[in-house]
Amino acid sequence: MAVDKDVRAALDTIFAADSDLYQKRGWNQRSGFGERPAILNIDLANAWTRPGSRFSCDDMDAQIIPGVQRLNQAARAKRVPIIYTSTAFCSRFDMGAFPLKTPFEDLLIGTPATEIDSRIAPEDGVDTVIIKKRPSAFAGTHLAGILRAGRIDTLICTGVTMAGCVRHTVEDALGEGFRSVVVKECVGDRVPAAIEWNLFDLDMKYCDVEPLEYVLNYLDSLESFANL
Amino acid sequence: MAVDKDVRAALDTIFAADSDLYQKRGWNQRSGFGERPAILNIDLANAWTRPGSRFSCDDMDAQIIPGVQRLNQAARAKRVPIIYTSTAFCSRFDMGAFPLKTPFEDLLIGTPATEIDSRIAPEDGVDTVIIKKRPSAFAGTHLAGILRAGRIDTLICTGVTMAGCVRHTVEDALGEGFRSVVVKECVGDRVPAAIEWNLFDLDMKYCDVEPLEYVLNYLDSLESFANL
Amino acid sequence: MAVDKDVRAALDTIFAADSDLYQKRGWNQRSGFGERPAILNIDLANAWTRPGSRFSCDDMDAQIIPGVQRLNQAARAKRVPIIYTSTAFCSRFDMGAFPLKTPFEDLLIGTPATEIDSRIAPEDGVDTVIIKKRPSAFAGTHLAGILRAGRIDTLICTGVTMAGCVRHTVEDALGEGFRSVVVKECVGDRVPAAIEWNLFDLDMKYCDVEPLEYVLNYLDSLESFANL
Amino acid sequence: MAVDKDVRAALDTIFAADSDLYQKRGWNQRSGFGERPAILNIDLANAWTRPGSRFSCDDMDAQIIPGVQRLNQAARAKRVPIIYTSTAFCSRFDMGAFPLKTPFEDLLIGTPATEIDSRIAPEDGVDTVIIKKRPSAFAGTHLAGILRAGRIDTLICTGVTMAGCVRHTVEDALGEGFRSVVVKECVGDRVPAAIEWNLFDLDMKYCDVEPLEYVLNYLDSLESFANL
Repeated sequence: MAVDKDVRAALDTIFAADSDLYQKRGWNQRSGFGERPAILNIDLANAWTRPGSRFSCDDMDAQIIPGVQRLNQAARAKRVPIIYTSTAFCSRFDMGAFPLKTPFEDLLIGTPATEIDSRIAPEDGVDTVIIKKRPSAFAGTHLAGILRAGRIDTLICTGVTMAGCVRHTVEDALGEGFRSVVVKECVGDRVPAAIEWNLFDLDMKYCDVEPLEYVLNYLDSLESFANL
Repeated sequence: MAVDKDVRAALDTIFAADSDLYQKRGWNQRSGFGERPAILNIDLANAWTRPGSRFSCDDMDAQIIPGVQRLNQAARAKRVPIIYTSTAFCSRFDMGAFPLKTPFEDLLIGTPATEIDSRIAPEDGVDTVIIKKRPSAFAGTHLAGILRAGRIDTLICTGVTMAGCVRHTVEDALGEGFRSVVVKECVGDRVPAAIEWNLFDLDMKYCDVEPLEYVLNYLDSLESFANL
Repeated sequence: MAVDKDVRAALDTIFAADSDLYQKRGWNQRSGFGERPAILNIDLANAWTRPGSRFSCDDMDAQIIPGVQRLNQAARAKRVPIIYTSTAFCSRFDMGAFPLKTPFEDLLIGTPATEIDSRIAPEDGVDTVIIKKRPSAFAGTHLAGILRAGRIDTLICTGVTMAGCVRHTVEDALGEGFRSVVVKECVGDRVPAAIEWNLFDLDMKYCDVEPLEYVLNYLDSLESFANL
Repeated sequence: MAVDKDVRAALDTIFAADSDLYQKRGWNQRSGFGERPAILNIDLANAWTRPGSRFSCDDMDAQIIPGVQRLNQAARAKRVPIIYTSTAFCSRFDMGAFPLKTPFEDLLIGTPATEIDSRIAPEDGVDTVIIKKRPSAFAGTHLAGILRAGRIDTLICTGVTMAGCVRHTVEDALGEGFRSVVVKECVGDRVPAAIEWNLFDLDMKYCDVEPLEYVLNYLDSLESFANL
């Protein structure tokens, strides 16, 4: 869902001035891909991908889901590992401090709301599904450890929400030792402008934001990870 | 399962000399209970509690399971939170580096092996079950965060194995800001002497090791956490 | 440094629409203060607080430093713990993956650049200074553990940068079990609009953003933590 | 310092029986070296390496320090990264819950007690020194992230204490995605038998325990990491 024309113009003015300032000071560098990527599909479960939930995000059916389908297919062709996250809880105690700010009571483990969208379903016993409890896919999970054990150095990130789980994940990734590439057409939110400014912040300081076709070309160019 | 008489005597000699040395240097202190405990039942799932698995531990039917039943009951009477862990994986990638040293291929999510033993079954929607991937209940999990949000300051620990998950959990607990009390009759292993020396190391430096009756009396003396 | 009038108007339009959407869906709640706060002054070291560095932030002399001085004084009067962070490294290896995106080579341990600004100097042996390596004050540090041990439940946050370390810290805080209150006049960046949109995102989903006078009144109303 | 003859015999009996049991169940495997090692010298600071402190460990002058000197030299010849840890605090609050069990008041940042022993001094600006606050070199530090960023997959561990920091570090390493090799002659404690049983537990489940000459030969066989 696009922001309106005046807002778009105001944001473009800000981003142009700010990216210039960042560049002069030494940020706004490209990190590129490393040697071994994995796909990380963040919270593409029904509560976020289907309409009618308080978590529902925009642009799912026409843009994000088809984009992730293409990415997954390109990754599978090269045996690039695919990791999914969902956010789900088993009790009020399991939610910790989040209910102070966030309505998590709909996100129960074992319900359809927290299952990965069937249009991009994980392959049983092959893909890895992480049930996380916090926005970041790294915070309070074992993700960093298994990426390192699998010699992964780059995360190709999709999913939702841009102002929440995607941003927090990418912030953590660099500190945990990984590059990230966020696929522009495959990330979403409930709030259009929040996508814009969070992509801007991340691209300046934490990761590369790249178009889908660029990432697909990169995956197609890889040799197969058949020996993983 | 008891260690034999000569080994017992040798260990007792070592422990007496060493606890004296620790005491003189300032360790071997009692930390006691804080103000708000939770029960942490570590890896009491069928792979560990039932015979016939490579993970099977000793002393389950006559000692550990009945002890945990009594602890859980005493805790429920006061609405003290009860947390269970199990160790379970969804793919080879999910296991990270562990297969280099440890045979984890039997521990699959959703199989009976990794379900909590039905004799001490969690109460649905009330208790908290954490599916961990590493020995420590803290490492790569959200446990510390939810304990703090629930204002818990003390963990009453049971489970297996003493040389693995129980030890690692208790080591992490102190650094994460929590006291631990390990219930002597409710922890086990596959290797009897390993219980002895790990309890000794922990009691000197990381936690209090206490008998079951002492912990039950403590729980009975608490006011109810009805307002949790 | 204020954003210009047109940008301000565009952002206000977005924020009004988005906060309404958040509210309807169950976010945009106030978490308030808990029972025991600590002050967390994030990266108020010379590289960020003094002019002439690539890290230099706006509004330091007239606004942020005087505000933090008042907060620290109010906190000391009640023996509320004060924690400072700085970001500093001892070798290229120590920086990990950050140089891929961020110019950290000026931030060496033991140089004036990474020392806390003398106008708000820590009290030796009383305050706590954490040398962190990542944006978040929690990521790769022991902060959460010592807050829990000190029975702190609320972080009052100041410092820089809003789009980097402050945001990431506040995101982590909730998952680690803590409330945060960000003091509006005491946070800064190099990029004015980034302050606005990051404060908005955080206030909707992760913390309460409150004015300085409100927080000072709260601190003045506390009983002394003399027994800490 | 060797354990006495009877104790030695009792421990050997236990270890033989237990390693057999572990082997039959699928543990007691060798993980070996990976492709890129780093040296991790744990808490070889004056409080532990010099006599007269409550933390002083045995076997330093004749065995551990000379062994670490040889390892460091072999590593420097191949530009293998060398990482040191020390444990040091700046305030009582900084110690968290440890004083409940452990006497940490002598371990202040910036005092000789917590500085690395000059006989194995770090090379300024080249080696990495991590000031940790917990037993494990991973817990509450950024170690895992910088190892990953440096593409390290194996830790060669030395230092003290075996029942404390060395054990906890090695337990964490595997979960964080790294192999460890503990150098038998280069680890120590205050309590001789604790070295034996902790080396046994670790070797069965978490790492390979190897003699110094074996590790030196391995380092000598490597190509230089000149491109790190």
